[in-house]
Amino acid sequence: MLELHQAENDAEVAVPATDARLASWAHKDLLDTDTLSLDEITRVLDHAEAMREVRSRPVGKVATLRGRTVVTLFYEQSTRTRASFEVAAKFLGADVVNLTASGSSVEKGETLIDTVKTLEAIGADVVVIRSGRSGAPYLAARHTSAHVINGGDGTHAHPTQALLDLFTLRRLLGSLEGRRIVIAGDILHSRVARSNLWTLSVSGASVVLCGPPTLLPRTLADLAAAGRCEVTTDLDAALAGADAVMMLRMQKERQVAGLVPSLREYIRGYQLNARRLALARPGAPVLHPGPMNEGIEIAPDVAHGLNSAIDEQVANGVAVRMAVLYLLCVGASR
Amino acid sequence: MLELHQAENDAEVAVPATDARLASWAHKDLLDTDTLSLDEITRVLDHAEAMREVRSRPVGKVATLRGRTVVTLFYEQSTRTRASFEVAAKFLGADVVNLTASGSSVEKGETLIDTVKTLEAIGADVVVIRSGRSGAPYLAARHTSAHVINGGDGTHAHPTQALLDLFTLRRLLGSLEGRRIVIAGDILHSRVARSNLWTLSVSGASVVLCGPPTLLPRTLADLAAAGRCEVTTDLDAALAGADAVMMLRMQKERQVAGLVPSLREYIRGYQLNARRLALARPGAPVLHPGPMNEGIEIAPDVAHGLNSAIDEQVANGVAVRMAVLYLLCVGASR
Amino acid sequence: MLELHQAENDAEVAVPATDARLASWAHKDLLDTDTLSLDEITRVLDHAEAMREVRSRPVGKVATLRGRTVVTLFYEQSTRTRASFEVAAKFLGADVVNLTASGSSVEKGETLIDTVKTLEAIGADVVVIRSGRSGAPYLAARHTSAHVINGGDGTHAHPTQALLDLFTLRRLLGSLEGRRIVIAGDILHSRVARSNLWTLSVSGASVVLCGPPTLLPRTLADLAAAGRCEVTTDLDAALAGADAVMMLRMQKERQVAGLVPSLREYIRGYQLNARRLALARPGAPVLHPGPMNEGIEIAPDVAHGLNSAIDEQVANGVAVRMAVLYLLCVGASR
Repeated sequence: MLELHQAENDAEVAVPATDARLASWAHKDLLDTDTLSLDEITRVLDHAEAMREVRSRPVGKVATLRGRTVVTLFYEQSTRTRASFEVAAKFLGADVVNLTASGSSVEKGETLIDTVKTLEAIGADVVVIRSGRSGAPYLAARHTSAHVINGGDGTHAHPTQALLDLFTLRRLLGSLEGRRIVIAGDILHSRVARSNLWTLSVSGASVVLCGPPTLLPRTLADLAAAGRCEVTTDLDAALAGADAVMMLRMQKERQVAGLVPSLREYIRGYQLNARRLALARPGAPVLHPGPMNEGIEIAPDVAHGLNSAIDEQVANGVAVRMAVLYLLCVGASR
Repeated sequence: MLELHQAENDAEVAVPATDARLASWAHKDLLDTDTLSLDEITRVLDHAEAMREVRSRPVGKVATLRGRTVVTLFYEQSTRTRASFEVAAKFLGADVVNLTASGSSVEKGETLIDTVKTLEAIGADVVVIRSGRSGAPYLAARHTSAHVINGGDGTHAHPTQALLDLFTLRRLLGSLEGRRIVIAGDILHSRVARSNLWTLSVSGASVVLCGPPTLLPRTLADLAAAGRCEVTTDLDAALAGADAVMMLRMQKERQVAGLVPSLREYIRGYQLNARRLALARPGAPVLHPGPMNEGIEIAPDVAHGLNSAIDEQVANGVAVRMAVLYLLCVGASR
Repeated sequence: MLELHQAENDAEVAVPATDARLASWAHKDLLDTDTLSLDEITRVLDHAEAMREVRSRPVGKVATLRGRTVVTLFYEQSTRTRASFEVAAKFLGADVVNLTASGSSVEKGETLIDTVKTLEAIGADVVVIRSGRSGAPYLAARHTSAHVINGGDGTHAHPTQALLDLFTLRRLLGSLEGRRIVIAGDILHSRVARSNLWTLSVSGASVVLCGPPTLLPRTLADLAAAGRCEVTTDLDAALAGADAVMMLRMQKERQVAGLVPSLREYIRGYQLNARRLALARPGAPVLHPGPMNEGIEIAPDVAHGLNSAIDEQVANGVAVRMAVLYLLCVGASR
């Protein structure tokens, strides 16, 4: 009846066979970092390096995922993460459909499971889920053959953030073996801290978690006892000799909830300012997942100072997400 | 002054001449199913079959509508329908611009007519309109040379839903001649029921409309008297020997409006559960336009049971919308 | 490790060298019209003419900006402007990411500066900013190497609107030297009037600004004294012998603010109706930036009459925005 032609020669859009072999990937989904071995983490970062090279070309775009559809399903707002996944998918030639909670059937009471089944049925190859509910992407992943990427779920996990943090540190510090990496702020509610703890530990880093007592989870005592990390409420002590510092966002709601006596107290005890940064090793990179509360958890001169790797984190986030999309779509079976 | 090159060779993106001839299509717009002859309905479904084949290829995307712009103009939220049109257009190589009521000039009081004229002027080839006001797409279509597709207007019509329902039934049952098809639930407010009544009748099916007396429109008595359909308030009777069942969504607002005594009553009388489904022919497919209220109009085990064709409906919706976009853009004159 | 292939031959997507030379452009950003010389304004319009030609082709799309990413960052809603930039970018082959205030980190208190730095880091080549705050795009432009286009900032400027107005007038009237162009309505709050004043003046037109005394800025007296424009509160007098009329949108909030006695009074004194239009030269084009309040600042029969160039403005807006995107991306250094 009708003869529909491909736009491009298949040979051009297909990934060469050798790549496909090299890219074979054992996981259908990326739900957290803790299911990844050190070897797998390293492969993500190596692919991210290749993606940086793609981005440095005059036309920083390839057709590797042409014909694939990536859906971003965001129940929480996030400029950075949504836009980062969107451009990552487009740079690889995929189509992107953006769905937000207010625009979805969620308002009509549809369950997450029905939503992802619908998305799979309309042709989604990958669904990136950001949700305020811890575990939501896990539930979704069990009910769809589409690849699910956790774009941050509640206080649980944020695997691509952890991978981009590690990628940024590896590019700046080389091997993380024996490096002292401080993560400071609201550890209790931070999916970023949780996902980073695994990738940093498995990379051989010595992780120091620091925050006010009310914002440190009790389970950390066990981890600390097992030698998996160091826990402290003293930021100055934590920073002594640190090779890198990751500051976490201080959610103003925490103060309302009575977990922090006052922002002034918090700033006094836990803001990364120039004086404190001087306690770390010279040149120690400063990371922040953004968006920053400048003047709260981080002083403006540090946020935009010589040690700041924050803009680089954002750029690396795109490369890491390209790598993850590539490995899932090209290397993983569904 | 400047010489701008096409990305691809025109020969690659153009539809072959023979197709264009075969695809000639008499309608500028798709506003409802009742303007389509049986022959035209069959052609839509045949093209949808071809689109399914496209989707089954390794790169399930063609460039047939390259350079065309499809605008989704949604005054009501709908994940399924908007995303379905969006991917359908992208799978054909078109560009898509999404506009929602909250993001449009509607808030500034611009009329629908001015909005569609503006969209035509910026280059829209197709405008898909979803509106709570019955008749809105008709008004729009009269004032623009762009193709208008009704994506659901008030309680009036939802032609692509009816076409995808028919496509799904044809694939599962073959010819519908003499088949007993039950549509059950809130018939009164259902644009889906209205648009389906035509396509099913004209395909030779025997349509049974079933719902509580308060949710059956009075005009149905005339249709029933004319032998165009059967109307009943008894779901068990309706289902006896049915070849397929379409359940409609029960809007919870109806209960508030006093049209249904209680959800419990509604469930008792009109939920499709396993016992009732057993009254239909063995293997009778169960359809639902979604999103479902599981536990209200449909029992979970039926929604996800062996007879359920609900996920297939969603996938078929993309193919049908591709076919409609193709016929309008390639076959119809503006 | 992995070898990623370009989708298309680079030769096809690159702009020919001669064009690149001709397109060299001295400005990183387009923040207002007042930084453009007459020669530069003419070059934008000449390129817009070439873009109209592109749009008239069977596949009205080129790959000139393939691999470039255009972000629309809209803190104010606007169907027309956002959709116009979006299609303009897509017609040139760029990818588009749409961000609105409600979907951005702005809600989390992120500063505009951090937002644009983030967008640059994720790979934005161009950021189109629409903001209620006058000067916002200037602030953004100073902190990013991405090209910033002002899509309308507060009551300050709207350069692409002024350029499309000029383009529309040039196409209809030829040279504007000595032409009497009336801009009427709420001059005080109009970024459109402000940006038009420069482009029209520098093109040799004689500009007449007309509105009620409460809606005329005081600074206009200086401009009028300097012979740069004529200012009047009498619309009939303004229109006498006019070569073209631009009507501005009457924001209903102005009445609430006490700046206009009543809509009835406003309509009596400042609505462009058929009687008044007859005072202008025969065939004088009528422009309006949209969305129109029909029946307020413009009578419906004038809005849709023979003199109306309003739909043409919208179509020209796409061509002008294509030209601006092209000149910034291809001609300007970052």
